[in-house]
Formats: sequence, C-alpha cells, structure tokens
Amino acid sequence: MHPLNPAMAATFAPPVMEARRWLTETPLPAGLPLINVSQAAPVDPPPLGLRQAIADAALTDDAAHLYGPVLGLPELRAEIAQQWSSAYGGRVDPQQVAITQGCNQAFCAVMSTIAGAGDEVILPTPWYFNHKMWLDMQGVVSVPLATGPGLIPEADRAAALITSRTRAIALVSPNNPGGAEYPAETLAAFRDLCRAHGLALILDETYRDFDSRHGRPHDLFADPDWSDVLIHLYSFSKAYRLTGHRVGAILASAARLAEVEKFLDTVAICPGQLGQIAALWGMRNLGQWVSGERAEILSRRAAMVAGFPALEGWRLLGCGAYFAYAEHPFAASAPEVAREILRQQAVLMLPGTMFMPDSDPAGARQMRIAFANVDAAGIATLFNRLSNLRLTLR
Amino acid sequence: MHPLNPAMAATFAPPVMEARRWLTETPLPAGLPLINVSQAAPVDPPPLGLRQAIADAALTDDAAHLYGPVLGLPELRAEIAQQWSSAYGGRVDPQQVAITQGCNQAFCAVMSTIAGAGDEVILPTPWYFNHKMWLDMQGVVSVPLATGPGLIPEADRAAALITSRTRAIALVSPNNPGGAEYPAETLAAFRDLCRAHGLALILDETYRDFDSRHGRPHDLFADPDWSDVLIHLYSFSKAYRLTGHRVGAILASAARLAEVEKFLDTVAICPGQLGQIAALWGMRNLGQWVSGERAEILSRRAAMVAGFPALEGWRLLGCGAYFAYAEHPFAASAPEVAREILRQQAVLMLPGTMFMPDSDPAGARQMRIAFANVDAAGIATLFNRLSNLRLTLR
Repeated sequence: MHPLNPAMAATFAPPVMEARRWLTETPLPAGLPLINVSQAAPVDPPPLGLRQAIADAALTDDAAHLYGPVLGLPELRAEIAQQWSSAYGGRVDPQQVAITQGCNQAFCAVMSTIAGAGDEVILPTPWYFNHKMWLDMQGVVSVPLATGPGLIPEADRAAALITSRTRAIALVSPNNPGGAEYPAETLAAFRDLCRAHGLALILDETYRDFDSRHGRPHDLFADPDWSDVLIHLYSFSKAYRLTGHRVGAILASAARLAEVEKFLDTVAICPGQLGQIAALWGMRNLGQWVSGERAEILSRRAAMVAGFPALEGWRLLGCGAYFAYAEHPFAASAPEVAREILRQQAVLMLPGTMFMPDSDPAGARQMRIAFANVDAAGIATLFNRLSNLRLTLR
Repeated sequence: MHPLNPAMAATFAPPVMEARRWLTETPLPAGLPLINVSQAAPVDPPPLGLRQAIADAALTDDAAHLYGPVLGLPELRAEIAQQWSSAYGGRVDPQQVAITQGCNQAFCAVMSTIAGAGDEVILPTPWYFNHKMWLDMQGVVSVPLATGPGLIPEADRAAALITSRTRAIALVSPNNPGGAEYPAETLAAFRDLCRAHGLALILDETYRDFDSRHGRPHDLFADPDWSDVLIHLYSFSKAYRLTGHRVGAILASAARLAEVEKFLDTVAICPGQLGQIAALWGMRNLGQWVSGERAEILSRRAAMVAGFPALEGWRLLGCGAYFAYAEHPFAASAPEVAREILRQQAVLMLPGTMFMPDSDPAGARQMRIAFANVDAAGIATLFNRLSNLRLTLR
C-alpha cells in the first residue's frame, strides 16, 4: 500500500481485535461455553435509571443532539471538580477539567501536548498496550521501566532512565494489566522525581472506583501546586458501564488544557452529548450502586487470589481492579499458551507479550486474566478448566 | 508550561472557540438580535422519529451501551456500502467502510496512516482549518495550492508543487469554506495526478447532501480500482443533524482501513453506539426528509447569491453547501472587520485569515458566511445590516 506512514506501519495491530480473530478461527471444544476474560469491559448495560435518563434527554433536550463546547459540558466539568476535590482532599477547579471521548483519547490528547517524534516517555512494564501504540505511531520512544515486587514501579529505577529527551512518566493505578494498586508513597516519589526533572507525571486512574483501599489512594491533589506536574486521567466506562458512549476526563492545569483543546477540536470537535449527560446523571445518582459494584469486584478478586495457589506451577504476580496477571508454567510461549487454552478449555485470555516490549522475555511467560465479568461460580469453573489444561511444562 | 510539544504550541487555537470568545467579550448593539453565521452546524435537533429511535435503543438495546467493533457497526458499514455503490455508480464493499467519531476524526485517522513529521500534503486555499491544525500538530508540512476562478483548484498547478516528500492531496467538495462544487473533470484530473505520483487523494464530501447538481457529483467510484488512490470522507452531522453524536465515515481500501484500525483503537476504541444507531436509522428512513432540507439550503444559497451584487464593494468568490465566501471592501484586515461587524451589526462571521496561510495576503480581505441556519427573512436582514456597516473603504 502506498503511501504509508512508516510509524503507523511499525505499530502493532490492536490486541483485542487480534484476540477476537482467534475466537473466530478456533474451533471450541464441544460442551464448554466460552469464558471470555480477554477484555476489561462490562458485559451488562447500565442500570435502568441511567438508561431512562439517556432516553429522556434524547427526546426532550435539543442540545443533546448538537455540538457542545470542545472541553465538555460545564456542568459535568464542575461536578468532577467538586467530587474530586472532596475525594482526594485537594482543590480542583472546573477549568482544570476536560471531557474526552473515552480515556484512551484523554491519553492521546495529553501526550500530544507533551511529546513529539524523537522524544521519550517512561512506561512501567507490563504496560497498557494502547499507550504503547500511541507513542509508536507518533514516533515517541517508549522507555520500559521494569517493575519490582508486586509489579510496583520504583522511582529510583526510573531516575536512571531519564535522558535529555525524556518528557513524561505514565502510570496506571490500579494497574492495567497488572492489577497493582500503587502505594501513595510510590506515587509521591514519582511526583517528586518528575517535578525535579521538569517531566509530566501522567496518572491514569480508570479503575479507581474498584480500588480495595479505603479513603483517598494518594495525596497528590492535596499539593496546592499539583497541576504543575500531575495530569490525571479518568474513564466513565467502567464505573457506570458506559463503554459504548465513550466518556473520559483529564484533570490538568488550565494552560495544559488550552493546548489539549487544539487536539480535541481537531480530532473530536466535542465529546458525545448523551454520554456526558449519562456520566453526569451517574455521578449524581449512582454513588451507592457503584459501591455495590466495587464490593462484587473485590469479592471476585478475592476468589482469584484464593484460587491460584492450587493451580500447579502458576504464579500470581498481581491482582486488583479487573485483572489478575500471572506467570504460566508451560514450555510454550504465551501466545501459543493462550490459543491452546482457548482450543482445549474455551477460555480466552491475553498473553503477556501484548503488554511487554519484545526485548523482555518475561512477557512470553505471562498471562492477563480480566476476571471482572466472571462471578464466583464462573471463577471456580475457570480454575477447574485451567487445572485440566494439558501442555508440556517447563 | 513544561514540558510542551513545540509542534502543538505552534498550532493555532481553534477558530470557532476564538469566535465564541469574541462573542463573550463584545458588547452587542441594543435591539439587534445576534445573527451567528460563524459555525457550519444545524441549530435544530433531528426529527422526532430519529430521536425516538435513539431513545428506544437506549432503553431496549443492551449493546447500545457497550463497546462495539473498532471500525463500526457492521449493519451501518453495509448500508453505506450499498447506498454509496448505488449513488456513485461504482462498487464499495462493507470492508471498505469504517465509522469514526465524526469526520474530523476520519481525516486525522486517515492522515496518520499516510504522513509523518517532515512529509508534505497539498491543500487548496482557502483551506478547512482543522485539516491544517492536524497537519501542524503532526509536524506535516501543509503546502498551499492557490485556487483559480470560482475557488476551483487545478491539477496542473498542483503538479508543480509535488516533491519527493509529498504524500497526499486533500480536497473538500462541496467546499468548506469556499462553497465551490468541484467539477467531475477536476476531481478526475486530481485522481490521475495522484495515481501517477503514488499519492493518496483524500476527498471530504461532508456537504454532498447539499450539492446543487443532480446525479452523482463525480465518477471516481466507477473506477474499479478506485481504492488504490481515493480515500473518501463523510459526516452524518449535517444531513441528519447529529453533530452532538459524532459520527463520520471513511471509504478506502481494506488494507488502508487495517492501518486506520490501529489509530481508531488507540484514540477512540469504538465510535459511540447511539450515534451509529441514529445514523443507520436516518439512512433507512430520512431520504425524503433530507431532500427537503437540501431544497431549503439551496433556496437560502440562491438568496445569498442574489443579495451580494447590491452590497457595495463586496465580491462573492464562492457560494454553495453551507457557505458564502466573499471579499470585503474595507481598509481594515478581516479579523478587525469581523469584530467590527459584530460590534456594529451583531453579526458573527469568520475572517478569511482563519482559512489562509499567513503568507497569503488575500485572507485579510476575505470573510466566510455560514448561512445555513438563516432563513430567507434572516438573509434579507443580514444584507441590510452589512449595508449599514460603517467602516473605511479601501
């Protein structure tokens, strides 16, 4: 094909689409219904009240069908500012909030204001593949930061990777794919490191509503100067089951958001209006419901943690948010193992190679299990199937 | 602010947001209601049937709230393939169609697969500012192609601008901001030029539903090899008044769309589901209604064309789609004229400088009037106010 941007050609294909192709190509064993733990997405629709709110807006609110402000609905920006200020014990102003068409877009928009071709960004491994893909297609170098015990990154090790081309460090907590909940001290150390070197600290908290800890997960917003270094990202997809509506958010300095506005005007014009209306309704009405969702996810997480020790040769490296991240015991590489698990046991999970640089052989031994959609009985079945897997051990 | 990507810093601020700021800063004359001809967007919501279809889906279709395929709903891709094949007298397969979060995103996605930093793309002037902004922020050089009579670009003049770094020529027909409907022969000549030089021809037909000509506007799809050179872009925003839902489309080779899929997975994950459902419902049910909308826009266009000769010193350069593009007769530059028109006459229009390179002095003498939302009586008032404007003539 001609012409073709070489940076795009060098970017890998979307892993989730690749996994869907496996599904269509692989004959599943008779009598075993599929257990799909490949994607971090709700499979049920949002609660009826929220659906009704969307329907009402479609019928009665003319503005719900028309362009809105590039940076999002003022009411939603104000609600986020108020709830975040309260939850994180700091001060966030509405003009420090922007709404995006999902949290992936939030990352791309922010990163466009920070780094261009030839610049470097530090990502702990395993990393979130769409972050890596965006940096690839922009010609930005992803510098892998190996994590320590519990998949927690260490600021001291990151310091050794900083060069004159480094522009940012991007963290995800609770982590996708690793499930790790980064300690507040870890995040403070990264904040200090970034501030000392004039880097941006991007903190993606898409899974914050499912954090197992009580109270605020960190004190970064309590710093009155937080916006000189911190850029926080959020998604409404998981908490309110709004994946199909594409709503995310950026919290950053108003000056940063003026640059973000250029990107969003050009790539989005504005976020979808009904999704924003849904997010606002959810924030105002679904606090109790989200607490129940969190409790259920935490009980599933506990079942995942409890089940691993009995699974011969497997080792759980991290577990939290929607994810268990584990080492498999087989001689084959992770993509082969993933396809064999699908073929023999009708379980679809993603191999660690999708989350690791080619240069790190650990990815071939690792698997991500996105367990959020599987209830307690399903988790028991999942472990049963994995224990029945017949593959050559290392 | 630090760190800041210099390519983003060099990109100009969104013109439509800049115009909104003028509105908030400028005291309007008493007794004159605002006539806003700055943005190309419907101000009324879609018809009730379409709104009801969205509301029904929100209440009864679980999938409307969940992730869908990256390249869009299969039913919508198939419907576009079928209707486009019929309308353009060619063959478009469903796998040659992708859905995007609006047509701006379609351009960004396609261009990302074509050109990277240091490459060149030819844009006729006046150009659509978001195209220029995307190229700026990607470090791609926009090469301006001055247009001839009626604001029609000429392939021969474009040929002289092609270098070893040229990757594409991007056309918009009917044109934003110029209103010109490009003749079929013009488009065929650009197609032949691009094919001969291995360039992509991007043709944005966002305003095709308001073309004054009968039958197909060009024969490009009738070429069985169209997809080796042509990339067609479309928007559902104007025809069905869906600006707030963000739905656009790309027609290109399946190989190109496999590259586009990487971009869309990373920036969008998927298009909003309700917007896609709305677009599909519109395509299947609103053909007659869109014809009526077209007739109304064409009558407004006729009123614009009829009114200009009486407006002293003004010269209409192009008129079509939602736009009149005209030369003003004043000594002041277009941004000053625009703000003075707002201050004296409560009319908001965009200056030509927003659509022209800084190197071309013509922009300072030009104005874009997006007349689509102004009815016949409003257009009479508009001309009346412009004739009352008191400014020093050149």
